[in-house]
Amino acid sequence: MSRLNSLPVLAFTMGDPAGIGPDICLRTIKHTMRNQPFIPILFGSKILLEQSFLSASLTGLRIEPFQEETALETGVLYFQHSYDLSTLQTGAAFADNGLASEAYIVDATRFISNGLADALVTAPICKESLELAGLSHTGHTSMLKALTHSDSVSMAFNSPTLRVILATIHVPLQNVPSMITQTLLHEKLHHAIHLLDCLGLKEKRIAVAGLNPHAGENGLFGSEEQAIIGPAIRSFDCDASVSISGPLPGDTVFHRAHQGEFDLVLAMYHDQGLIPIKCLNFGASVNVSVGLPFIRTSPDHGTAFDIAYKKEASIESMCSATEFALELLHHG
Amino acid sequence: MSRLNSLPVLAFTMGDPAGIGPDICLRTIKHTMRNQPFIPILFGSKILLEQSFLSASLTGLRIEPFQEETALETGVLYFQHSYDLSTLQTGAAFADNGLASEAYIVDATRFISNGLADALVTAPICKESLELAGLSHTGHTSMLKALTHSDSVSMAFNSPTLRVILATIHVPLQNVPSMITQTLLHEKLHHAIHLLDCLGLKEKRIAVAGLNPHAGENGLFGSEEQAIIGPAIRSFDCDASVSISGPLPGDTVFHRAHQGEFDLVLAMYHDQGLIPIKCLNFGASVNVSVGLPFIRTSPDHGTAFDIAYKKEASIESMCSATEFALELLHHG
Repeated sequence: MSRLNSLPVLAFTMGDPAGIGPDICLRTIKHTMRNQPFIPILFGSKILLEQSFLSASLTGLRIEPFQEETALETGVLYFQHSYDLSTLQTGAAFADNGLASEAYIVDATRFISNGLADALVTAPICKESLELAGLSHTGHTSMLKALTHSDSVSMAFNSPTLRVILATIHVPLQNVPSMITQTLLHEKLHHAIHLLDCLGLKEKRIAVAGLNPHAGENGLFGSEEQAIIGPAIRSFDCDASVSISGPLPGDTVFHRAHQGEFDLVLAMYHDQGLIPIKCLNFGASVNVSVGLPFIRTSPDHGTAFDIAYKKEASIESMCSATEFALELLHHG
Repeated sequence: MSRLNSLPVLAFTMGDPAGIGPDICLRTIKHTMRNQPFIPILFGSKILLEQSFLSASLTGLRIEPFQEETALETGVLYFQHSYDLSTLQTGAAFADNGLASEAYIVDATRFISNGLADALVTAPICKESLELAGLSHTGHTSMLKALTHSDSVSMAFNSPTLRVILATIHVPLQNVPSMITQTLLHEKLHHAIHLLDCLGLKEKRIAVAGLNPHAGENGLFGSEEQAIIGPAIRSFDCDASVSISGPLPGDTVFHRAHQGEFDLVLAMYHDQGLIPIKCLNFGASVNVSVGLPFIRTSPDHGTAFDIAYKKEASIESMCSATEFALELLHHG
């Protein structure tokens, strides 16, 4: 736990100010504090707390500015003002909101690196806002990777019945086959084992999906299974607590994991891994970064500009992200 | 309906003799005949009916050889001996079983073409058996396409909550992007509309999945959505009963269809379409060929050599395939 407190301290970033992030952060923190002991530090802009839409969520919450020298108390939401937004612009992508989103993340990462918080829960950001702001990073993963000087970060998803880690993420489908190398797959398998270790699993049953239909059907529909994926599995060095199966046909491996046969599936590309996660556990899955020096989770949805500041967005996935961060800290 | 009877006549092919096909054909026919009026003609090899494992399924079934000149009666399973198997070999792929599988399909197709049956329900065949037999076709779709001289045949799946049609099928993933053309997508959209028409849908809401993560995220993760898929949707000529949405992100479009927003999703490749079908409706989905001169359905599983002639395989999907063929005939 952090150096300031015996309770876990979770850093929350508000995400893009135009999105549902500020709203779901406040309501998630309030909801989760009722059930679990932890201390929240929220990174955002003061102007957001002043919005009338959000005031309902503030009722009953004791909010105090974070001060490093003061001991943290339970029952308090600590707020860190990380970026001066002159005005709140909503409904679309804006450069200022991109700069704000980035500032929250930079600040929260600095806090965690300095031992002031234990884990990070991020609300959704907008790639277009970041682009308008002239920032080179297009997502949390690449931003956090750079901020923490991490060699390699994997995107994984945890849901009530299925865990998935992705070999490749936000790349055109046509680039995927050439990116699948034995080195990459070994790195992802190490990350998969690390995640399952963090969850306290003694036995770790990992399945590796094939790239091609029917996992290539013995080379009939593609050669990557025989040339790369199969050899990568066979040459992977791991202890007896880990079993690795595959390459298995993509169309059935996720169903098999969902039924309890595997603890995690290594998917070769974005849609292969995300389709089953969203079909089987929509709204209840959590995005988790593996390979950073700290735990970082986030909900499985985007900024939802269309419903921000209008009606209550669901906090189900943000609550799951918070609870999963606490679960990982508990085992870790 | 066929020229011999006012009831629908369904042709069933036993599939690979080493698989679960012969068993599930008999039990499915028996089960479905109890609930729905139709006349079955089963294409297979006599030696299979003589296997002791299958005799239990024969109890209570009146089986007669099919004779063209005799009027068909309800309550009878007509059997057409289509291939002389000298002995039953099981547990693996065999050339003789490949030849038998093909003969059943050739015979059944001939019957339907001659107006002796209305639709075809096929039990699973084994690609490896066909290869050992020196046959060039590796699946039902290509075989039926050649036998009926059809220009283009699409593979579609019907399940209780989701319908999918595939733009590409059994090809290496790396070949998929270059195969996605406007011509191909128009052809698949025509097939999609035809299928929904056959089901009697007045309004037809079709979604088209993107190829790349997040449907390319405005070109950030791939260009096919902007260059090909979007223009194909916009230039597609259809009447007011059809609405086509897309390209929509692959990771959420199937969940949306499952929730009732769309009647059918056009998926770009095998795993993209099959993962949601198998995750959401495992064992209850039906494979249907669109573009043949007749209706052809099949279950969504394979030959299952490991459980054939051992224990009772599930007939759920084969029953769904039979009922779906009858449903399509009813509307057609």
